[in-house]
Amino acid sequence: MLEELKERVCAANLALVRQGLVVLTWGNASAIDRERGLVVIKPSGVPYDTMKPEDMVVVDLEGRVAEGRFRPSSDTPTHLALYKAFKSVGGVVHTHSIHATAWAQAARPIPNLGTTHADVFHTDVPVTDEIPDGRIREAYEEATGTSIIETFRRLGIDPGETPAALAVHHGPFAWGQTVEKAVEHAVTLEAVAEMAERTLTLNPVARMNPAMTEKHYSRKHGPSAYYGQLRPANGN
Amino acid sequence: MLEELKERVCAANLALVRQGLVVLTWGNASAIDRERGLVVIKPSGVPYDTMKPEDMVVVDLEGRVAEGRFRPSSDTPTHLALYKAFKSVGGVVHTHSIHATAWAQAARPIPNLGTTHADVFHTDVPVTDEIPDGRIREAYEEATGTSIIETFRRLGIDPGETPAALAVHHGPFAWGQTVEKAVEHAVTLEAVAEMAERTLTLNPVARMNPAMTEKHYSRKHGPSAYYGQLRPANGN
Amino acid sequence: MLEELKERVCAANLALVRQGLVVLTWGNASAIDRERGLVVIKPSGVPYDTMKPEDMVVVDLEGRVAEGRFRPSSDTPTHLALYKAFKSVGGVVHTHSIHATAWAQAARPIPNLGTTHADVFHTDVPVTDEIPDGRIREAYEEATGTSIIETFRRLGIDPGETPAALAVHHGPFAWGQTVEKAVEHAVTLEAVAEMAERTLTLNPVARMNPAMTEKHYSRKHGPSAYYGQLRPANGN
Amino acid sequence: MLEELKERVCAANLALVRQGLVVLTWGNASAIDRERGLVVIKPSGVPYDTMKPEDMVVVDLEGRVAEGRFRPSSDTPTHLALYKAFKSVGGVVHTHSIHATAWAQAARPIPNLGTTHADVFHTDVPVTDEIPDGRIREAYEEATGTSIIETFRRLGIDPGETPAALAVHHGPFAWGQTVEKAVEHAVTLEAVAEMAERTLTLNPVARMNPAMTEKHYSRKHGPSAYYGQLRPANGN
Repeated sequence: MLEELKERVCAANLALVRQGLVVLTWGNASAIDRERGLVVIKPSGVPYDTMKPEDMVVVDLEGRVAEGRFRPSSDTPTHLALYKAFKSVGGVVHTHSIHATAWAQAARPIPNLGTTHADVFHTDVPVTDEIPDGRIREAYEEATGTSIIETFRRLGIDPGETPAALAVHHGPFAWGQTVEKAVEHAVTLEAVAEMAERTLTLNPVARMNPAMTEKHYSRKHGPSAYYGQLRPANGN
Repeated sequence: MLEELKERVCAANLALVRQGLVVLTWGNASAIDRERGLVVIKPSGVPYDTMKPEDMVVVDLEGRVAEGRFRPSSDTPTHLALYKAFKSVGGVVHTHSIHATAWAQAARPIPNLGTTHADVFHTDVPVTDEIPDGRIREAYEEATGTSIIETFRRLGIDPGETPAALAVHHGPFAWGQTVEKAVEHAVTLEAVAEMAERTLTLNPVARMNPAMTEKHYSRKHGPSAYYGQLRPANGN
Repeated sequence: MLEELKERVCAANLALVRQGLVVLTWGNASAIDRERGLVVIKPSGVPYDTMKPEDMVVVDLEGRVAEGRFRPSSDTPTHLALYKAFKSVGGVVHTHSIHATAWAQAARPIPNLGTTHADVFHTDVPVTDEIPDGRIREAYEEATGTSIIETFRRLGIDPGETPAALAVHHGPFAWGQTVEKAVEHAVTLEAVAEMAERTLTLNPVARMNPAMTEKHYSRKHGPSAYYGQLRPANGN
Repeated sequence: MLEELKERVCAANLALVRQGLVVLTWGNASAIDRERGLVVIKPSGVPYDTMKPEDMVVVDLEGRVAEGRFRPSSDTPTHLALYKAFKSVGGVVHTHSIHATAWAQAARPIPNLGTTHADVFHTDVPVTDEIPDGRIREAYEEATGTSIIETFRRLGIDPGETPAALAVHHGPFAWGQTVEKAVEHAVTLEAVAEMAERTLTLNPVARMNPAMTEKHYSRKHGPSAYYGQLRPANGN
């Protein structure tokens, strides 16, 4: 069942380790088959050095396991919330990569300070609002997904144009049309998180001019360059 | 004698190197056999690239060598003090990993600023009080262990819930129910030490809200999730 | 056609990855055959792990493809502008290496704070002026090259003596008599960018004395040491 | 001639690369045969990946080549000055390692902030005084050595107890009874340079208490522990 997608999701999880984004087992990647409404996700607690495609878990959009020997990642409800709200997303990645997590812990969005950022993210990468205590206590993982969705809605950011968010006090989530793109966006996010921290150390009022921001984003994502572009999930 | 434990302790010492926590030979891991009251620990001054299980040293809780061609690590008295005071601890790790050591040298506890920390450590990771000069001059290594124990008692921290400490001006110690868990906690400590330093650079008043702290800790350690949990050594 | 140069340009692109200057595919190297007026450059979007010399693209100085199955790097107009203005340059390298990019994003030149810098760069490594909005919208990549050339002219810096620049809000470009030298200069630039950031953290008014600056540069580049020296492109 | 010493010096140079202290070719190690008054040192400009013991150069204490196909490292006069002044030194290492070089560029000594430092260096690691312009212009490399020697004398530091120095605006030199010990001291220096920078970020007034400084140094270097100890070159 979904053998090819399992291979790709397994490869994406291993790519996160190879790219240095994962300490111990703190990361997970998933992909969705939109036609069947099924999500393939990393199992919980299987070590990376023996992880195989057949260990991946298949769940439906309500989180019921459709296939798999293992329990799915404990972050599964967050992934599912994102797939349900962001219709064009094909893959989701979560890590605790050091620099992006530091911004999440600082409760600050990552500002768009250069072309490395602007090539991939159209806006600052937002940080979610604090989750109310009541929602933390119940259905916390789903609440993490909901807080990302609400933050994008409130700020009017298109999740297809800025394919990542920082869950406050927690860490980064990134997504893309495919799970491979989601991994690329997670790698980019970690690099721009480090660059932005260092930039502000060197110049606390650094800021890129808007014309350059637009140029770089539209080079890769404008109407004349659909390559790699995610269509927005809704009109926000 | 204790062949299986020697293999695990040897593997744990090599894991510290592989995880990037050890510069030159500045690190050691040990494990205890509680029934026999014997501790297996890294020998002093044996290079990592030739270290074998049979090089490990077996000592009793008073530090007398029960087996082994080599002298035990010079930090053995610190390990023994921890085993004697923290009854549920099965493994102890000491390193001079860069970021955790910087916090120890700064004489500051590592604040609980995010879920990476809260998943493993229930409180800030404490830094020990200054050791009085007299105790530094005599039985210094044992005094390091005693200062950790007293700091946990004074702050009312359960060593089973926050399985690490910073020895002031010195470096981190981590422990766990097994030596493998102790290594995991040492790896986590180094990551959260780096994240916390970077977080405070970005936001000097960063702080996680208490509901989230509790949620993350209890996900992995609450009454309904005993997995990986250490029972406290005493009622503190 | 230009088989030997293709091998060297391919090797230079792979060296950028091995030296840790390239995240994902954010980098490119090129070399020029001055006699034929042809430039060999990395193709756009070919992954590094399968990149072969025959994948390199040959273009003339107006950017017309003379040979190659792939499209040339999107930064090709910047490379060509530099070859046209700086006559002694034989190779050009562009990366988004973390530390040099942070200085570019901060819109600050990298100050000449030590002998590591002075051995290779005779002056501070300049950052380009902001590119006017109109030029950003049209022929942006060429404008990046032009802005480097104009910045060197305005500051009176000899591009043969300081073989690198920071494109503001974007990232570093480095060059040399050969593409191998350009790679070396890009590696040096990243190291001195990190050293300078850390130096200013430790001492915000750090500065090397001028006699030492001259001594170190002239050891490797003075009239009595032509080794590795680029002749200036013009009298500036 | 001196075949065994050539092997050790070659291995030491390669160890500097493996330990991450050397960017490109910026580093060199040497060792002395005190009986014959001959020094074995790295050749200038031979790439590390093909470097062999027989490439090492043998020079006498006046810098005359006694054997070798290549020219000796351009830093040879600095090494020779140290061997002549510090009689117990058997090996010398110079690198441009990032963190130690940042302290040198900042013209600040590395403060003794923790046991990692105190285990190897008895005092702060000093930074040399500015070299007068006249001496920079002539015999600069020898002047670098002289400035280290004079700085130790002025501060009353025993080079056997603090086996490293920062050449101002330049970078670190480390030494030891053997070239292997000199490499270890260079590795330690880079680690404590990074730890000290991070410690002062977290606590600008951090300082270790003197009793702990003495305890840690004397554990490894006191009258009852000669292991690894260098005897001072003179009474300073």
